Amino acid sequence: MTYAKRMLESHPRAAAVQVGPLIECIEACLDCTQSCTACADACLGEVELAPLVRCIRTCLDCGDICATTERVLSRQTEFDADVARAVLEACVQACRTCGAECERHAGHHEHCRVCAEACLRCERACTGALSALAASPAD
Amino acid sequence: MTYAKRMLESHPRAAAVQVGPLIECIEACLDCTQSCTACADACLGEVELAPLVRCIRTCLDCGDICATTERVLSRQTEFDADVARAVLEACVQACRTCGAECERHAGHHEHCRVCAEACLRCERACTGALSALAASPAD
Amino acid sequence: MTYAKRMLESHPRAAAVQVGPLIECIEACLDCTQSCTACADACLGEVELAPLVRCIRTCLDCGDICATTERVLSRQTEFDADVARAVLEACVQACRTCGAECERHAGHHEHCRVCAEACLRCERACTGALSALAASPAD
Amino acid sequence: MTYAKRMLESHPRAAAVQVGPLIECIEACLDCTQSCTACADACLGEVELAPLVRCIRTCLDCGDICATTERVLSRQTEFDADVARAVLEACVQACRTCGAECERHAGHHEHCRVCAEACLRCERACTGALSALAASPAD
Repeated sequence: MTYAKRMLESHPRAAAVQVGPLIECIEACLDCTQSCTACADACLGEVELAPLVRCIRTCLDCGDICATTERVLSRQTEFDADVARAVLEACVQACRTCGAECERHAGHHEHCRVCAEACLRCERACTGALSALAASPAD
Repeated sequence: MTYAKRMLESHPRAAAVQVGPLIECIEACLDCTQSCTACADACLGEVELAPLVRCIRTCLDCGDICATTERVLSRQTEFDADVARAVLEACVQACRTCGAECERHAGHHEHCRVCAEACLRCERACTGALSALAASPAD
Repeated sequence: MTYAKRMLESHPRAAAVQVGPLIECIEACLDCTQSCTACADACLGEVELAPLVRCIRTCLDCGDICATTERVLSRQTEFDADVARAVLEACVQACRTCGAECERHAGHHEHCRVCAEACLRCERACTGALSALAASPAD
Repeated sequence: MTYAKRMLESHPRAAAVQVGPLIECIEACLDCTQSCTACADACLGEVELAPLVRCIRTCLDCGDICATTERVLSRQTEFDADVARAVLEACVQACRTCGAECERHAGHHEHCRVCAEACLRCERACTGALSALAASPAD
């Protein structure tokens, strides 16, 4: 069992949204923030830098946005659905933009291929959390 | 002249949006992330904690979201308007929620009054950056 | 295979330190930053807040320091051993302080027990990375 | 009066270290994290990228470490001198490494010159905060 799951299950208050999609989203954000930080750095280590400038940039943004989304979602005390929704929507957008850019380089660079996969998984997990949020009783 | 202004003016590429609202937004986000971190901590140092639980929570979220927004806006190379817009909208929402909560305690705690002011200024600066973004030529 | 491992193995440059301890450290930092964010929030959701004030504070610091350590270690291009060592030492100290505080509440709160475990694992993984760093050829 | 000063002066508990050096350090960290984020991005926007790879890398590390140092120092409730000292020492090291690298490019790129200045100021402010910490009564 992951730490994210153990932490959520020992929280004194009931989660504001369905636990399954919430944990999936937190874990996908953790993986994606790490992959994006590492992919920006791996791109920076390549010999041919110019074609990777946009990839480095989108990875830096996506890494920051995923880290913040993970934190907002990890907080269940006095959960605010409006803030959670807005940050999840920003994360969906960042993952979509970054995943599409990484995908363009996936044939040349394995790190871009792995990062594109992490972005796609995170985009889907954030979309899943948004659905769970919409289905939850009014906050 | 602030560092944010000097850094933006020495950037090799032209800014994707009007420089004035951009700098104002970056600086307001920097002040707001610091105020929110400090307000969450000051609330935690008060004797009567229970009424401040929601304030601590919203300050932690807002501090994280402002820090990320500042970073995304500080990057002008291969600027992506969709990602910038989404993160600015999340920041407007976080500042609105946190500012309203801090305002509720402004009569009792000076740190909440100052933080509410930082949130309101940041909300307006992000709204200003969103307008500048809408006015800029297609990305 | 974790994303951290896949990203490191597809990096264009050889890792500056032994890959095993490096991956362990990155993954322990990711888990610990999440556990600390979640434990600060879970403490905030408890009815009896006063005895948990120091725990919330140390969790917030440790969560921030682990997140930064994970990022610095995830970057292998132009790795700087002095910066890596200093941030790892700060992380060891943060995990020790936070883990000891969480341990004090482990009997009462399961989230503190899990977080203490994450801190201890992260402290050890950072110590392991420091040893690997000391054993690596001069940078 | 800056927000950092207003927040610190309205804190319910007395600051654990002398207020002057503390505020200077928080503000220098805020400026330096922004300058480093912006300098990494400005470097990425230059035509000749290869000579700037190490500068981008050190700016990314320094930006993360300054942001975390600012947060740890902004928290005065249940201040822990050991954690503060360790993170300040990491910040001194990061600013020294990054400032020296930026200085090497100061003749060619104004953004590197400004960032080198922000790093030097932050290194000194962190050293000042370490002295204030050493002078304060045992925690």
